[in-house]
Amino acid sequence: MNRPQTNRRKLIIASTSTVHGSPYLSYILPRLQTFFAGTDEIIFIPYARPGGMTHDAYTETAAGGLGEIGKKVIGLHTFSDPVRAIRNARAVFTGGGNTFLLVKQLYENGIVQPLREAVFGGLPYFGTSAGANITGLTMQTTNDMPIVYPPSFDTLGAVSFNINPHYLDPDTRSTHMGETRETRIREFHKINPQAVVGLREGSWLHVSGEHITLEGELPARVFEQGKEAYELPEGSQLSFLEHEIMG
Amino acid sequence: MNRPQTNRRKLIIASTSTVHGSPYLSYILPRLQTFFAGTDEIIFIPYARPGGMTHDAYTETAAGGLGEIGKKVIGLHTFSDPVRAIRNARAVFTGGGNTFLLVKQLYENGIVQPLREAVFGGLPYFGTSAGANITGLTMQTTNDMPIVYPPSFDTLGAVSFNINPHYLDPDTRSTHMGETRETRIREFHKINPQAVVGLREGSWLHVSGEHITLEGELPARVFEQGKEAYELPEGSQLSFLEHEIMG
Repeated sequence: MNRPQTNRRKLIIASTSTVHGSPYLSYILPRLQTFFAGTDEIIFIPYARPGGMTHDAYTETAAGGLGEIGKKVIGLHTFSDPVRAIRNARAVFTGGGNTFLLVKQLYENGIVQPLREAVFGGLPYFGTSAGANITGLTMQTTNDMPIVYPPSFDTLGAVSFNINPHYLDPDTRSTHMGETRETRIREFHKINPQAVVGLREGSWLHVSGEHITLEGELPARVFEQGKEAYELPEGSQLSFLEHEIMG
Repeated sequence: MNRPQTNRRKLIIASTSTVHGSPYLSYILPRLQTFFAGTDEIIFIPYARPGGMTHDAYTETAAGGLGEIGKKVIGLHTFSDPVRAIRNARAVFTGGGNTFLLVKQLYENGIVQPLREAVFGGLPYFGTSAGANITGLTMQTTNDMPIVYPPSFDTLGAVSFNINPHYLDPDTRSTHMGETRETRIREFHKINPQAVVGLREGSWLHVSGEHITLEGELPARVFEQGKEAYELPEGSQLSFLEHEIMG
């Protein structure tokens, strides 16, 4: 596809909804208060949750978190026409769960292209975990199990690289022979060219037009094809990763 | 599909090729000596390896391991007609790597159905890691990253359940919010009915006709839809898991 203009983008792409020992979303609420200052109403996409919890219950969880900063949250599943709901939305939050399930349902409901267009048109988008993963070019650096078969691995491409949420450093004490996260991403790069940003829990990317800034408490780990992985500290600009793939 | 007769099956479905601190395949060579007693020649399927190592080099590794018990190993990639090679094979070994890549190439080379038929016809099949995963009904309980998009997640169905290789117990010290393996498999069961056998490194299933026996040093962790996960000790029969899904 032709890449749309990026100068209206507004996203927060967060590794996780919850950091250990604190309530849902609480670590990032001060940041969301500024980010969502322009609207009181946020559409919540609950599709990633694999059951056990209904879409209603998941939306209530999201509403509980965002209610702390005075926002009203409406589940996308409550609209008879979800495409229209996305086109009319003032802001969107996509929660975590299973990325395969999320992507399958986004396609089945015809949401992928309308959501992409809305995000490039300036719709404020906040995503955690699976909801962060889908802002990348593809979902192929998810950590999730393929519990359903989506019609494609292509996602929003709101940023021109891939996201690895819940990035986890190798456990040097381990004798386990399964691949580490870093090994898996290196395998991804045997086949796919785009950079991968490993976001540790408590970190997020703030995308504002052309600018992509790492925020939160921790450095990110960046993987580029054919290079050693490296760390970028909080406050770094990551937009150069987009120019690489576009150039 | 109609399930074929199972009385000719001969498989070893192993969690891993290598246990920590010992050479490639060495922990399982005594068992393979008996298992492969009927043939000196084994076809090796190297497709799972995502690059960095060529199919030739990977086949050499396999040949080095199986050479210790006097077997000749030939890479499937060296045949101009791989389907015919599978049909004529005396024994097959599928090595580990990335399951998505393995399954994609099995489909692209038209190998899935011929390999399934050969296995149900009595071809001795040994698989480690990704090569073990594909003996299940689907590859959907892999731990791997979706670095390529296969045309289907359906695999050999040589056993009527799914395999989770490199099964890893939850790390009770962890503060990480990413899902544990057990949580991922529970999510799988929100959508899929078949049992999942979590094979710890150093364990394998020996399938002989209708009998499926857990061998190796460690218990397996079994996940059935709607039940608490439980442990089965070495020597257990697992064929009851097939009857559940078929009944």
